[in-house]
Formats: sequence, C-alpha cells, structure tokens
Amino acid sequence: MYYVGIDLGGTNIKAGIVDGTGKILSQAYAKTLASRPYQDIVRDMAGCVMQAANNAKLTIDDLASIGIGIPGYADRDGNVVFCTNLGWHNIPLKEEMQKYINLPVAIDNDATVAGYAESISGVSKDAKSSVFITLGTGVGGAIVINGRPWSGAHGIGSEIGHMILNMNGVPCNCGNNGCMEKYTSATAIIRMARQACVTYQDSLMLRRAEGDPDRINAKTVIDAAKAGDRAAVEVFDEYCKFLAMSIHNIITFLDPDMVVLGGGVSHAGDFLLNRVREKVPRYLLYKTLPYSQICLAKLGNEAGTIGAAMIGKLALEDSVMGS
Amino acid sequence: MYYVGIDLGGTNIKAGIVDGTGKILSQAYAKTLASRPYQDIVRDMAGCVMQAANNAKLTIDDLASIGIGIPGYADRDGNVVFCTNLGWHNIPLKEEMQKYINLPVAIDNDATVAGYAESISGVSKDAKSSVFITLGTGVGGAIVINGRPWSGAHGIGSEIGHMILNMNGVPCNCGNNGCMEKYTSATAIIRMARQACVTYQDSLMLRRAEGDPDRINAKTVIDAAKAGDRAAVEVFDEYCKFLAMSIHNIITFLDPDMVVLGGGVSHAGDFLLNRVREKVPRYLLYKTLPYSQICLAKLGNEAGTIGAAMIGKLALEDSVMGS
Repeated sequence: MYYVGIDLGGTNIKAGIVDGTGKILSQAYAKTLASRPYQDIVRDMAGCVMQAANNAKLTIDDLASIGIGIPGYADRDGNVVFCTNLGWHNIPLKEEMQKYINLPVAIDNDATVAGYAESISGVSKDAKSSVFITLGTGVGGAIVINGRPWSGAHGIGSEIGHMILNMNGVPCNCGNNGCMEKYTSATAIIRMARQACVTYQDSLMLRRAEGDPDRINAKTVIDAAKAGDRAAVEVFDEYCKFLAMSIHNIITFLDPDMVVLGGGVSHAGDFLLNRVREKVPRYLLYKTLPYSQICLAKLGNEAGTIGAAMIGKLALEDSVMGS
Repeated sequence: MYYVGIDLGGTNIKAGIVDGTGKILSQAYAKTLASRPYQDIVRDMAGCVMQAANNAKLTIDDLASIGIGIPGYADRDGNVVFCTNLGWHNIPLKEEMQKYINLPVAIDNDATVAGYAESISGVSKDAKSSVFITLGTGVGGAIVINGRPWSGAHGIGSEIGHMILNMNGVPCNCGNNGCMEKYTSATAIIRMARQACVTYQDSLMLRRAEGDPDRINAKTVIDAAKAGDRAAVEVFDEYCKFLAMSIHNIITFLDPDMVVLGGGVSHAGDFLLNRVREKVPRYLLYKTLPYSQICLAKLGNEAGTIGAAMIGKLALEDSVMGS
C-alpha cells in the first residue's frame, strides 16, 4: 500500500504518493490561493492527490491513508481549529476531504510532520528521540520520542519558538517577551543585521543591499559573514550563540538523541552547524557527559509531504491496533 | 513480590518496602554522614533495607528489586557519576549494594523518582504524561511520558531548573545566566525578599526575622504574604509570575497532561497554586485551547522512597521483557 501526504501551505499545495519507507513516488502541485473558500482549496488538494496517484500509475485502491500537514492546529476529529496563514478557523478539513476521497485522514502541524519525516527517512532515522527546529520566518518545532511524534497531551506542544529565553527581551506577537524565535529565526538575523548596520555603515551587508537596510535578508547576512564581513560575522556569531542557548534548553529539558536544524537558516549548512556545535557545550549543565548530536535536516522541501504521509500511516496503524 | 526503595539524601538514608501499587509497608532510617567512605554509607543503606523488611515481616526472598534515588547522576551500569551533596564521583553503587543484597538494582535522580512516584500513586496517577517540578533550594524536575519516566537519551534531561529563562539575568552556579531556578526556587524567594526589605523596612518579613534580612527564609515570606504584608505579597506575586512563565515554557514545549508542583515551596498549598493557575494562561500561546492541569504533589517525603522502589520494579520488568 501507499500513503498520500499533502503539504498545505499558505502559497502552495503539494501532494505526494509515498511508500512505507518514506520514499516519494510522485507529486503534484497547485496554488493555494488562500483567499478562496476552503471548499475550493480542498477540492484542489483532492485533485492533486488524484494527479499524483495517476502519475505513479496507481488508483485509489492502492492508497491506504491521507495525511495533511498544515501551518496551524487541528483537533483530533480532523477539524482545523486555526490556521492563520489561510485565515481558517474551525474548518472541517477531514470531512471535506473525505467527500472526494474516502480514506482515513490524519492532520498535524507542518513542523511536526517535517520533524517526523526526518526521523523516518532523514537525518534522524536512527535516533529513537529527536527534536526538530525549523529556523524560518518564525521558529517551529517537532518532538519525536521512541520513534513517535509527540505534539503533547492536548496537541499544543513542540511550539519551541515560543519558549521564553529572555523574559525582559524583544516583544513577540504572542504577547510575551523574549520568545526564542525572537533570537533564532531568520527574522531575528535580519533585525540584528539592521541594527549592526547603524554602527557598521561600511558593512558588506549594506553594500549588497544597495545601501537600503530594509533589503537585507538572512541570506545577505550569511553570505557576507562567509565573505568575512566583520559586522555580518558578529551578527551571525550572536545568532549562533542564541541558538546554542536554545539547544541547551532543549537538551537540559528533554535530552533527545538528536537535535535537527531545518528551515531556511539551516541552508547556511556547515557554516551554521560548526558554529552551533562549538557553542552548545559552554551552556550545558553536565559538561563531561554525552549529549544530543546536533545535525542538519536533509529532506528539505520534501519533508512536509513525506511526514504528512507518514502521520497518516501511523494513525492508520494505531486505529488498526486499537480496533 | 515487594520492591525496595531507598531515598539517599545528603543528610538521611530512608529505605522502604513498597508493594506493586506504590504503597509503603514499612520504612527504616539512618543518618547519611556523608563524609564517610561510601562503603560505610552503602552498608547502612543495606542495613536499613534489612530492618525495613524485618519490620514488614518479610525476608529477602520476598523482595524483587532495589531502586535508589540519588541527588545526582548515575550511568546505566549503576555507577554514580557524580553526586555533589555526598562528594561522590564514579562510585560503583550498584556493585557495592549487591555485595550485601543480591537483587537487581536501579538508580535514578531523586527528582525523577519523586515525579514518577506521583504518577504511580500520587496526584498524577491518572495522567499519561506529567512534568514534576521540585521547588526547593534549587529546582529539579521529572518527566513522565506514556506512564514511563523520561530522563532523556543520555540521562541528562529533566533538569528543568537549569533551562534559561532570562539570558541576561541572575548568574547561576552552572555558569549560565538566568536559569529558571534563579527565579523559581526557595532561594529565589529569599533573594527577592531581602531586596524588597531594602525598600520596605517596615515589612512584616523583616520584623519576623528580628530585623535581620539574613534570617528571612521562604516560609517567612509566604507567611507574611498570607498575612497581607505588602512587600511579601509583591515578592510572592513576582515569584508566582516567574513560575507561571516557566510552566508556560514546559507546556509550550512538552504539553503534558499535568504539571505537578512539589518541593518546599509547594507547602504554601493553595496560596501558591491559585496564584500560579491564575497567571499561567496569560503566557500561553493558544489562549483558547485546553492545556495541562496544574496541581500540587501529594506524596510529600514519601515520594522518594516510593519512586525509587517503582523505578526498580520498572527496570526489572524491562529486563524480563528484554530477555
């Protein structure tokens, strides 16, 4: 049997047919066009599934389940409670999808499914426990314990980006101050770089942004740091320090086998990883004991589709075992 | 069969005979006298076990395992890697104990066993997942997931007190700044109270300490707050705010069914609990969704003995299943 994974984003819908080992056989895409009625979006999701199945020369009878990763929160009945990017509140996603394709549907948070994907066929596939951090516009997270995704008892866990790291620090949209994502997201790098450019007016970052601080993005900073620009190096070092503190918090609390770095900033690769690995031990409580491996995610954009398919598979297995 | 639990502290040794449901049948005590050679301490631990068994009219043949809770860290072979209060480093505790009583021995951190005890026969016994926080001189923690204690992949997890809450905050002995325990331990209450007494020289706290700020302890502060003393109320409210932030961090990361408050400060009872319960929602990311119950521990001093016995039982069951 094969498993459908749907990665539902604010911009794109991706549907993939995935085998039991987490390998993608075929994919299909559509624009989300998020301002449409949800029924139209779900119809296009179903259309992508049919197209991907067709591409793989499969029919509905070859498919066991549908898993959907969303940038939001769904309850256990398959209703999307909220999904800010799509403007969705209390949308019966499972029920609507089953009007088109009558298969078991599982829905989970996009970071959770991506982290789970890494534990199935990515960098953490040999780790029994892992914490996945997406370093993007915000910071998301996923926890895998004993090979299973853990979203918490009420499904509101693994929101690592909103753990308070600096209680008197930078205000966050969530209403708190000093959330980890205010220091470890791509947005944080940009904020720090713009501040640095006030002091370092000759920074390569500013030159590459044609003198306009508002045109600096995370890649500008990382590229300038790689080129040895002093301001950019200082910003990136500071960023890595904050990320190291955050990883310390994860280790000190949960001590997983592996901490996996994903999301846009992780594309800095070893330039990021080496700095972070160097900085983490300084913060650890037990400086002489073994601790989590720190690694880069490796599934990239496919993690969402694979992970969604695999949570569908897992939910199916759980329901069979429970019946 | 019955299970031996030993609570090894810097001051006292307690050994108890515990049944399979987590009920203590009998106990025996000795002074630790921590400056002695470890062999002498272990001999007294074994002596307490024999005495407790005798009190319960049991023999060694009725006992299945020995569990030991220590204020430190042990490896999986039963060696105490370090245990600061006892001045122990690399002590072969399991091996030494088995010279006296040849039963399977399991060793774990005292906070971990206490939290596990609460999940077996205490306040969190119906919770599948829980995080236990000991609010004492320092702050310890325990994580229980799917009914099992989780100390992490390397046994260095659940050190909740050393999660960074305020990265530019109060320096901690561990080398970091702004560890949670610097804001949520009994020691933190005392520090905050002494600071407050500089401003509020007429505080009831200071009067009860006979004018000597060094004589203020956590109970002085809590009693004065209960009596309505303005400085004490401000200090205790601030303390509860920090604790609420810390509980938010736990929920946002792990989202357990229950967060359990134990340790000395938890003896403030509902006076603590009601304030904390009131303050937590303000920090949560998802303000309209269900979240962890917050409760007071209920096993008190017996948690260490019960939990130690139960980790011995668990290790025994795991070894039988694994064989």
